[in-house]
Amino acid sequence: MTYCVGMVLDGGLVFMSDTRTNAGLDNISTFRKMTIWEEPGERVITLMAAGNLATTQAVVSLLDERSKSPGERMPSLLAAPSMFQAARMIAETLREVIERQSDGGMRADSTFNATLIVGGQIKGSPPRLFLIYPEGNFIEAGDDTPFFQIGETKYGRPILVRAYDPEMSFEAAMKLLLVSFDSTLKANLSVGAPMDFHFYEADSLKTGPSGRIEQHDPYFQTISQRWGDALKEALDSLPEYERPAG
Amino acid sequence: MTYCVGMVLDGGLVFMSDTRTNAGLDNISTFRKMTIWEEPGERVITLMAAGNLATTQAVVSLLDERSKSPGERMPSLLAAPSMFQAARMIAETLREVIERQSDGGMRADSTFNATLIVGGQIKGSPPRLFLIYPEGNFIEAGDDTPFFQIGETKYGRPILVRAYDPEMSFEAAMKLLLVSFDSTLKANLSVGAPMDFHFYEADSLKTGPSGRIEQHDPYFQTISQRWGDALKEALDSLPEYERPAG
Repeated sequence: MTYCVGMVLDGGLVFMSDTRTNAGLDNISTFRKMTIWEEPGERVITLMAAGNLATTQAVVSLLDERSKSPGERMPSLLAAPSMFQAARMIAETLREVIERQSDGGMRADSTFNATLIVGGQIKGSPPRLFLIYPEGNFIEAGDDTPFFQIGETKYGRPILVRAYDPEMSFEAAMKLLLVSFDSTLKANLSVGAPMDFHFYEADSLKTGPSGRIEQHDPYFQTISQRWGDALKEALDSLPEYERPAG
Repeated sequence: MTYCVGMVLDGGLVFMSDTRTNAGLDNISTFRKMTIWEEPGERVITLMAAGNLATTQAVVSLLDERSKSPGERMPSLLAAPSMFQAARMIAETLREVIERQSDGGMRADSTFNATLIVGGQIKGSPPRLFLIYPEGNFIEAGDDTPFFQIGETKYGRPILVRAYDPEMSFEAAMKLLLVSFDSTLKANLSVGAPMDFHFYEADSLKTGPSGRIEQHDPYFQTISQRWGDALKEALDSLPEYERPAG
């Protein structure tokens, strides 16, 4: 499985993805699930993928090739006039890859499906964030639903729902995401560290702080260890239940 | 769906179940999913059920009838010599009901399956807690896994994993469970209030404090509202992330 989160903040966009892939419990690997396309001063587009690894790698490779050879059939991601068009292009590519793999008569126990989160900014427009379904259609984040999760979304969702705040700093978002990822890692073996992250600062039109948080990263370890105590204190701070009489 | 939790504490057993059943999003009802059998001074057995409502109601009705008419084919729950035998009896009944519904050639979009949590105490033995699978086999809670969840288990799991403590009081367990249920209610429409609860006090051999928490219960409302703030404060209490240089 996989766990990826993309959030819209007032200050920009935040992305985090795990790196574990598995074909059965006894066949696990580490793969990067985040791709960043950049044309400094012009556009930055970040893509995260959950689902069949062959599918998502093919999507990224196709988009990559097409953005490098302008003569290709499909227009390049780096030439899309808007984030909406970029999302459409990625969605088309995803559908194309899934169809090609299914049409050949190939079958697999699991499907060839994948779900994507794509976000970024193109000069002249605000940052935008999309969730792309395997069917090739997609939705955009708005004020009511300002973040998307894909993959194993349930364990890490309650803290996001409760603590997300559009005004939060990148540092605070990082802390929130690491708590959300930690809860998921602790509950589902098919989600695993390291985590890749990218903070895109609105209107910077260049790749922002990005990197990888390893399992043994001291900050992540601190968060992981202290969160249990912090949660217990939070529970303690709530009023006590009074047992009904009788 | 459903959400039920059974926990083993040093002080006894705690049970909580939601009451929403649904056949599609547009057909929801409220049903009790918790049943308590009691023979004061002798035994108390609590059963919670997730899955097909017809199946779980049939299981409860069969167990109920058999515990009232001693001449029945199956031995009565109220005569089982141990909690292990009680769990086996319930598991057999569950398998019997599922098989009967499936064998008649009946098919349904969803299966006739159900999963059960059963816990209690019979005089002379300690309290025990079991999770019964649709296949009719079951496992028992131990020190390493001192609680069971059935139904929509994921949203409410991280807080249980982090804050469960075998030494906690019934009051503290109630608070913990309400937070866990609140996270689940907020995320899955097919889990709904009111919640039924039962606190079985070890060696009391009678039904303990039990009742129903309504959605508008003042204590539940307080927990639900304050938990968001408590979580934010817990996050704030963790050290800040420092952005990597460059």
